[in-house]
Amino acid sequence: MKIAIDAMGGDHAPEAIVKGAVNAVSQMNHLNITLIGDEQKIKPYLTNSNNIDIIHTDEVITANDEPVRAVRRKKKSSLVLMAKEVKDNRADACISAGNTGALMGAGLFVVGRISGIDRPALSPTLPTNDGKGFLLLDVGANVDAKAHNLVQYAIMGSIYTEKVRGIANPTVGLLNIGTEEGKGNDLTKKAFVQLKEAPVNFVGNVEARDILSGSADVVVTDGFSGNIALKTIEGTAMTMFSMLKETFMSSLKTKIAAGIVKGDLKGLQGKLDYSEYGGAGLFGLSSPVIKAHGSSNSRAVFNAIQQAVHMVEHDVTGTIKTTVQSIDWEKGEQI
Amino acid sequence: MKIAIDAMGGDHAPEAIVKGAVNAVSQMNHLNITLIGDEQKIKPYLTNSNNIDIIHTDEVITANDEPVRAVRRKKKSSLVLMAKEVKDNRADACISAGNTGALMGAGLFVVGRISGIDRPALSPTLPTNDGKGFLLLDVGANVDAKAHNLVQYAIMGSIYTEKVRGIANPTVGLLNIGTEEGKGNDLTKKAFVQLKEAPVNFVGNVEARDILSGSADVVVTDGFSGNIALKTIEGTAMTMFSMLKETFMSSLKTKIAAGIVKGDLKGLQGKLDYSEYGGAGLFGLSSPVIKAHGSSNSRAVFNAIQQAVHMVEHDVTGTIKTTVQSIDWEKGEQI
Repeated sequence: MKIAIDAMGGDHAPEAIVKGAVNAVSQMNHLNITLIGDEQKIKPYLTNSNNIDIIHTDEVITANDEPVRAVRRKKKSSLVLMAKEVKDNRADACISAGNTGALMGAGLFVVGRISGIDRPALSPTLPTNDGKGFLLLDVGANVDAKAHNLVQYAIMGSIYTEKVRGIANPTVGLLNIGTEEGKGNDLTKKAFVQLKEAPVNFVGNVEARDILSGSADVVVTDGFSGNIALKTIEGTAMTMFSMLKETFMSSLKTKIAAGIVKGDLKGLQGKLDYSEYGGAGLFGLSSPVIKAHGSSNSRAVFNAIQQAVHMVEHDVTGTIKTTVQSIDWEKGEQI
Repeated sequence: MKIAIDAMGGDHAPEAIVKGAVNAVSQMNHLNITLIGDEQKIKPYLTNSNNIDIIHTDEVITANDEPVRAVRRKKKSSLVLMAKEVKDNRADACISAGNTGALMGAGLFVVGRISGIDRPALSPTLPTNDGKGFLLLDVGANVDAKAHNLVQYAIMGSIYTEKVRGIANPTVGLLNIGTEEGKGNDLTKKAFVQLKEAPVNFVGNVEARDILSGSADVVVTDGFSGNIALKTIEGTAMTMFSMLKETFMSSLKTKIAAGIVKGDLKGLQGKLDYSEYGGAGLFGLSSPVIKAHGSSNSRAVFNAIQQAVHMVEHDVTGTIKTTVQSIDWEKGEQI
């Protein structure tokens, strides 16, 4: 198996990317990695080059580049060349921690969609109270979603959750502003009706208040609302940690307490660290494409590689293809 | 000034409601309160009945009632009678901690909209890092909003923030999935263009990640996304407090630390308690209508009363009316 990785994407590239890759090939059998990026910058961190190739390029898409334009114009960028490796069947999957919009663009225009999937979904796994985690999709690939898009997200999310996360018959919830049927906006009202008929374990509406308590294994929503939910979780956690820090630094007494529980609080932060679950899959593309978090360290990169390996091994893409193509979507839309 | 209050709405009714009211009349001059509800259940908590009247009724709208039907059928419920007091000019404002949907229904059908406002907005003030707080609207009164609704929210939110919260020239942000102009879904793209022309201090898009850091004094969004953001904040905070509790109870060592910082952590929880800022205003109605949080204690009820008093004193409703009616909305829609 071969995984192509954008060595230049992310806040800690190329160091974290290269170290994560070196770690992965040393621990996973039959794994080959192609790193795409500036050879001179990659090599200092490449302590072991067994099963690792480099494709050299100087061109990079930065976080500030306008995504679609960057993918079109920077044809020799590490991100676009990475996608080409998959497109031309020289790699089975690809990973980037770089510009999310550009990766979505390269996914759509270079790797290509599964026929029958209208819109791919960006799908991170987020932490829950009980440590099980849940898959949220979409968080921004498709901001003006239609009801049948959400049904496809439910199917793709269920297949991934069952095959890669090992959860049998995963529950699917529709993110909504109330739990009763009939709640919500035009989109969720329509999606509710269609999800009841879909080949997934649909458990109805779930409220944003409850998703971190594990109210469903797969939570589907349009890309706008999903992005708001994801970033609100991040923002609230960040705010609370900063308030907590302030509280602990406020007096000698609290500083002493902080010293005692320092390690335990780090553990708490770890529980909320969703890079532990790998990156966000871009489901619906004809090969696995994974967006690692921009701030990924080498461990997060390692986790994303493991996730890509699992997606290839369990043929998530092939299963999505077969399932989606077995459904009469025309009929689905009429419901 | 007279405020009508639904004595039977909320988790701790009527006790918290009555105690909050008694406290309010003892501390605020020229304040009269009408409590609507079951006299026999109200009286035990009515330690002082100066400036407090009771309108007796047995009928109650519960949290489980279907809102619109309940407002139509339970015409003698405490919530509907409360709204009638305002409608018939026997009260200047009203407050309920009961069924949110029913309060919105009673607001629309009994109290009535300001002419020129298409849809009212439910508008809580949420905490920020720096303790200043920000107004989020709408969080669910109107789940399929149009761009010009968001412009009206911006105007109403700015007037409230300036007059009641005392923040001069408040900044207005549009909740979106990126900060650059041109980001977002159809709605936010249109709203951005219209907000630039609106008579508010528009500072552009704000991301969900940053709203708790105080990126704008007023954040406008459609009711669906706003509800998702609000409930995600609640859910994340709840999850983190429960994880924190678990961490502190995990060993003798951490229990000792917990004992030391117990009071300080309570303070942290207080910082995040948005009932400190009063209830959520239902802006756009022809008199102030306030939704106190369902779990309101007597202090939260007191704060909501104070908020209603300030809204009446500063003529927030009248100012919204004059401002909205001075704008040529036909033209606004063509932008």
